[in-house]
Amino acid sequence: MTLRILDTTLRDGEQTPGVSLSVEQKLMIAEALDRLGVDVIEAGTAIASEGEFQAIKTISEAGLNAEICSFARIKFEDIDAAADANADSIFMVAPSSDIHISSKFPGKSREDIIEMSVRAIEYAKERGLVVEFGGEDASRADFSFIIELYRHAVDAGADRLTFTDTVGVFTPEKAFETMKSLKENFSVPVAFHGHDDFGLATSNTVFAVKGGADEIHVAMNGLGERAGNAALEEVVMALEFLYGIKTRINKEMLYPTSKLVEKLTRVKVPPNKPIVGDNAFTHESGIHTSALLRNTQTYEPISPEVIGRKRSIILGKHAGRASVEVIMKEMGYKATPEQMKEILARIKEIGDKGKRVTDADIRTIVETVLQIRREKKVQLLDLSIVSGVHVMPTASVKLKINGKEVVEAGVGLGPVDAAINAIKKAIKDYADIELVSYHVDAITGGTDALVDVIVQLKKGDKIVTARGARTDIIMASVEAFIEGLNMLID
Amino acid sequence: MTLRILDTTLRDGEQTPGVSLSVEQKLMIAEALDRLGVDVIEAGTAIASEGEFQAIKTISEAGLNAEICSFARIKFEDIDAAADANADSIFMVAPSSDIHISSKFPGKSREDIIEMSVRAIEYAKERGLVVEFGGEDASRADFSFIIELYRHAVDAGADRLTFTDTVGVFTPEKAFETMKSLKENFSVPVAFHGHDDFGLATSNTVFAVKGGADEIHVAMNGLGERAGNAALEEVVMALEFLYGIKTRINKEMLYPTSKLVEKLTRVKVPPNKPIVGDNAFTHESGIHTSALLRNTQTYEPISPEVIGRKRSIILGKHAGRASVEVIMKEMGYKATPEQMKEILARIKEIGDKGKRVTDADIRTIVETVLQIRREKKVQLLDLSIVSGVHVMPTASVKLKINGKEVVEAGVGLGPVDAAINAIKKAIKDYADIELVSYHVDAITGGTDALVDVIVQLKKGDKIVTARGARTDIIMASVEAFIEGLNMLID
Repeated sequence: MTLRILDTTLRDGEQTPGVSLSVEQKLMIAEALDRLGVDVIEAGTAIASEGEFQAIKTISEAGLNAEICSFARIKFEDIDAAADANADSIFMVAPSSDIHISSKFPGKSREDIIEMSVRAIEYAKERGLVVEFGGEDASRADFSFIIELYRHAVDAGADRLTFTDTVGVFTPEKAFETMKSLKENFSVPVAFHGHDDFGLATSNTVFAVKGGADEIHVAMNGLGERAGNAALEEVVMALEFLYGIKTRINKEMLYPTSKLVEKLTRVKVPPNKPIVGDNAFTHESGIHTSALLRNTQTYEPISPEVIGRKRSIILGKHAGRASVEVIMKEMGYKATPEQMKEILARIKEIGDKGKRVTDADIRTIVETVLQIRREKKVQLLDLSIVSGVHVMPTASVKLKINGKEVVEAGVGLGPVDAAINAIKKAIKDYADIELVSYHVDAITGGTDALVDVIVQLKKGDKIVTARGARTDIIMASVEAFIEGLNMLID
Repeated sequence: MTLRILDTTLRDGEQTPGVSLSVEQKLMIAEALDRLGVDVIEAGTAIASEGEFQAIKTISEAGLNAEICSFARIKFEDIDAAADANADSIFMVAPSSDIHISSKFPGKSREDIIEMSVRAIEYAKERGLVVEFGGEDASRADFSFIIELYRHAVDAGADRLTFTDTVGVFTPEKAFETMKSLKENFSVPVAFHGHDDFGLATSNTVFAVKGGADEIHVAMNGLGERAGNAALEEVVMALEFLYGIKTRINKEMLYPTSKLVEKLTRVKVPPNKPIVGDNAFTHESGIHTSALLRNTQTYEPISPEVIGRKRSIILGKHAGRASVEVIMKEMGYKATPEQMKEILARIKEIGDKGKRVTDADIRTIVETVLQIRREKKVQLLDLSIVSGVHVMPTASVKLKINGKEVVEAGVGLGPVDAAINAIKKAIKDYADIELVSYHVDAITGGTDALVDVIVQLKKGDKIVTARGARTDIIMASVEAFIEGLNMLID
């Protein structure tokens, strides 16, 4: 039997502090997960709010291939909400560790929990739901009680059993042993639900599979409360690539799905996230880049195309001869060995000062060392911005373009937008230049913090990056934009 | 023997694309790592640049307890640079997989690599360095060659041996077996160096220790190329808390050190990072928060104080009765059960629309439901901003404060700073109100993207959060600031 994947991005993942998804956004993610090939989509908790109920109902009625599941407590109202929302199944949890029993159902005993669970399962079956039953905080519970609770659950009609490591304290060894023992005790399918509090969620989930788990609970991008749930992309790639265990996941959809979830949840995937982080297939260090240009496998465990993304080689303080040569060839320049040494030294110097190195920095260095005097085609002579409460954000700009002064004005949705619009109007002779992306690093500290703006501009199939860094976001944005223009206008 | 920790934040971590640290910044991090209690600080690659050389020299001469190490290739110039920088030791790698040998030393054979390694080790010992020697990409190399290479290395004088999983393709099982086998073959200490390409770095490192590793290579916050190196904080906490294996790490320094590294490298720790992420001890979901208020262990594997940080309970769409009651008590309000139901429903409604819920949102909801008409003490009547190239960013503001109109003007380092300064001058009667933090989410997309500003204001020991969201960063900032003022001025 192929391993089943339950994705909990829309339930446990949506409980990530700060994350809120609308019904439409939840449907978009559910459709993406369906294309990705997950077997079960846990779409939320139907009882939690009117919005969650509507989301589950909408997803249940969207005609997806995946089984649609609602989270539920051992309460009739939770079961009714899930059934009324037309969910196929519920993932129902009962507190199983003594600490969870006493804090969630004060005064109740283990026997009470068994009784409540049995009644809830029987009721859920009456309401026509597939029931996946689990003990919450099972990894801190008395295992003999888990066995007893699960035996009653199966007798009451539970279709699947889940072992939940709610606070992420399991180890791979324990995950393996526990699943093995559950498989020996029960004939229904068993699942593992892991959290990443100690960074072991991926290995715990892999070892659960080795121990016999028929199903695993994972979330895209490792979203979820606290340190999150086991990351779908890590577990799937580790299983398939390192252990030769197949899933039904369409791997080339992993990266696009990760990006969609990132965008809608607004939880940025960190650059060093395995598989889907910005840096996973990005190479900067000079030594690596040069070996990489000879053979892409040198520093890549898998090809980026496998998961639907591309390799990226960026320059930086560790830029070596090979990568700078690639850039120079593009610019049509050639350097003597002496000049090349000087160029590399100057690039490293910027880096040693703790600054990021952009394409524009490297161009300036190369041209300085090669003594190529290239006048800046676009120069900012003047800029005025007016904005406020009863004022439409307005900017006027005076540029020198190819030696000619041009004055233009523009309005925008904000002062930065107005300034860029005014410049765009002034450079109308270069209407083929496009602002591909405008990025401002998160600003933290005070209102006088340095604002780092990175823009990507495009002309034909050439893309350049340029930076502006100022305490004034408008000036930083304008500076970056004009620096980029100067790299594209020859 | 207590397990030794080699921290590579300043070498492998600093090779993270986009990261550049100055000499002063590297020293600050080295001092923090020393206080944290790491045994070896790999401070950089002395040969890489003048800045790296100076950094290693400065750190070597700072009188730290830790052994200071430089990365080196099997080249005499690398060894000279490390020795000249006064490093105590080098971590020297030779390509060991066929793919690394052929792409780094085209035309060289395995025998050539052994010969070059032996000569380099002998030379490094002549230069008085402690030599830790490793095969790069050892996890993809022929293991019998690794044994042969290491045997020659030890004969040549290598003091320690490292097994490097350069592209992160190892599994816990293999890490265990490999370290066990190395321990059987060699009497010098052996180390494991793991990468996180499949999310297994933490478990691989833990299993390496179980297999007999005397030393492990880790980096703070899991920094490093691609998916990064094994995260120091995860490995240490998993070893100590889950496996009972002690290290010399001062655990209460983990969080402060993580924050320092985050700040200086500018690589933001993701909210769902184990141990050190913002969410690791943050609880939002209503169900959890209420259980948590009864017993903090319910959803926490360890106490946040252990690693030098605090618990945080935030409100959001999942806010339950218990957490809202805490807030209301603070505001001095009481609700009937009916009103409470309505308050909770409205909070969930905001969340269902995909918006974050701030303190100010909850206050507004509570006051609306309780029909408490609280006039906003501070209202924005007018705002004008002028900024540009030859203009000092200037703002004028007209506020109604307690019914009285106040006009003020201010300048600043940018337009946002000017606007906030003008408002601060206008509210001089409330000089005890402080802007604790000003945060703008990273802006991605276009210059017309929605800008999300969250401010924290403080008056005495009361702290509130408020949000502004506009396409205009100035208006979003002003809106958030005034909303926060209204929560603090009664």
